[in-house]
Amino acid sequence: MPLENDLLLRTIRKEKTERTPVWLMRQAGRILPEYRSVRNSLSGFKELVETPELAAEVTIQPVDILNVDAAIIFSDILVIPEAMGLSYEMVEKKGPWFPETIKTKADLTHLHVAEAEDVSYTIRAIEVTKKELNGRVPIIGFAGAPWTIFAYMVEGSGSKTFSKARALLYTDPVLTHKLLQMITESTVNYLMGQVNAGVNVVQVFDSWAGILSPYQYEEFSLPYISQICDAIQEVPKTVFAKDAYFARASFNKLDCHTVGLDWCMDVQESRELIPDKVLQGNFDPCALYGSEEEIAHNVKTMLKAFGPFHHIANLGHGVYPDTDPEKVKFFVQTVKEMSQNLR
Amino acid sequence: MPLENDLLLRTIRKEKTERTPVWLMRQAGRILPEYRSVRNSLSGFKELVETPELAAEVTIQPVDILNVDAAIIFSDILVIPEAMGLSYEMVEKKGPWFPETIKTKADLTHLHVAEAEDVSYTIRAIEVTKKELNGRVPIIGFAGAPWTIFAYMVEGSGSKTFSKARALLYTDPVLTHKLLQMITESTVNYLMGQVNAGVNVVQVFDSWAGILSPYQYEEFSLPYISQICDAIQEVPKTVFAKDAYFARASFNKLDCHTVGLDWCMDVQESRELIPDKVLQGNFDPCALYGSEEEIAHNVKTMLKAFGPFHHIANLGHGVYPDTDPEKVKFFVQTVKEMSQNLR
Repeated sequence: MPLENDLLLRTIRKEKTERTPVWLMRQAGRILPEYRSVRNSLSGFKELVETPELAAEVTIQPVDILNVDAAIIFSDILVIPEAMGLSYEMVEKKGPWFPETIKTKADLTHLHVAEAEDVSYTIRAIEVTKKELNGRVPIIGFAGAPWTIFAYMVEGSGSKTFSKARALLYTDPVLTHKLLQMITESTVNYLMGQVNAGVNVVQVFDSWAGILSPYQYEEFSLPYISQICDAIQEVPKTVFAKDAYFARASFNKLDCHTVGLDWCMDVQESRELIPDKVLQGNFDPCALYGSEEEIAHNVKTMLKAFGPFHHIANLGHGVYPDTDPEKVKFFVQTVKEMSQNLR
Repeated sequence: MPLENDLLLRTIRKEKTERTPVWLMRQAGRILPEYRSVRNSLSGFKELVETPELAAEVTIQPVDILNVDAAIIFSDILVIPEAMGLSYEMVEKKGPWFPETIKTKADLTHLHVAEAEDVSYTIRAIEVTKKELNGRVPIIGFAGAPWTIFAYMVEGSGSKTFSKARALLYTDPVLTHKLLQMITESTVNYLMGQVNAGVNVVQVFDSWAGILSPYQYEEFSLPYISQICDAIQEVPKTVFAKDAYFARASFNKLDCHTVGLDWCMDVQESRELIPDKVLQGNFDPCALYGSEEEIAHNVKTMLKAFGPFHHIANLGHGVYPDTDPEKVKFFVQTVKEMSQNLR
């Protein structure tokens, strides 16, 4: 079935388009009252992730309410460690917490390479979303990058320094590579399941890329992202590695189509370092706290920096929970109108 | 009185030295049992900061125990907001917390530009340290960069995103600049007080530099750091702005002598961007969790990357609290021996 709005896909194919496509990282969830009313009827975040009909509902909400050019499936990057055998809890206002963590080689014996079926709830949520969206906009699937997943599995929770996870890179690189490889294979299986269920694009999130040195990133993160990109040939791939400014030239060599930028990455410099890819980003989520006039000014700055083509407008990170949805609507509408006028 | 060990100062003056000097950010405190025994006899962290004799004692501990080439005065960057009229509490295991924060212009009326006398306990701690150290090694004074202090005064605590502080840059740049200027003048007064009390070097810590875009950094952080550098002409100045990779070329233009690097900054690239300054850093604090063999290997990598001169060995961030002091001793000793042998 052809898509009603395929602007995102045409942009990724580097076609000349009538305007710049726009969506927001974390658009499904937290900022929308409609999301919170679904969420509050449940026992917790994970119940929502694991209930396909409801996950599909909150996936579609921003398409209806915010008028974005793509839906991104509502799920969590930590479904992968859970599918591998390491379960987590989502602690209200604190974030994820793993009762068990990976410390030694022996801990790997409790893990297995996950199959897509191990995350059947998200696969099913994609199928429901596909049916209900009925071709209105493309669906983006996603997974965490192996390094980021590894960081949680070893650290056991979010952290300012991820010092336990980073320590393991020094103290046991063999175990590190073994676990990264297991995560990578699990992620490929999972993303292929998403592709088979109908996503049009996949995005790999390396949220904790920026705490590795450039050399560590080349050794412990990039090769695994590269494996994932190579394994998925059916749909275009986006890589977003927050704060990994040092890896931009390397991203240009990946078999991916789009590279996401955070708001600290200079656009012109990034264009020079990543000349072959479509770029996605990089509006500062904080700029959405400004007035409409200020938002419009900053949208213009962003659009002029990226230029009319090979750009998918987005934030430089996930939208912050206390952002006014009206400001987000204004942002989306402004990108649409202004990018058309600037052509 | 001439210093017994002036290696740090000779390095900063770009003299050819017999070996590379070494000290560690956060060397005074947390990792040493000798520190904890002083700390545990008190009601809290702030009592230690505010008791000159004890602050001097823990300042000198790492010189005795770790054999570092400099002492850095034990204090906290948040003494400045407190001296300006905004008090904070140090919550055990959570970090700093401000009962009141800056939200509007009206909140500024409760603040004043601080004088060095408003932080008399740290000034006195420097005098005591100076006397007790008796010229063994130089003393480093320090303060937070105005942007980082601003971030805490507006946010009210540590934060992953500092979204309230960053929002104010968009919603009220006039208030932002006014507060930044007040912090800057307070910081100059405070650092001049430290200089008069006898510190040999001052370091400005911009801990939250990396969450600003390059444009915001040029507008809201650099001009204020520059004012501080210009105002202090009596001793050499070091600027350490964590994660501000994008500002390295700008740091080269500051009236400072040394620029600190975090472990994510490539040394060669940084040498090219900051050719005129001595560089300080940038050993990954996590590498201290490794074996002695691994530490020696990584020290060698660091020393070879920086080369024999214009380098002060240090970590790329503060030493992590659970680091084994024996590993730190080994690190210090290895830098000393290896840098001598590599000449």
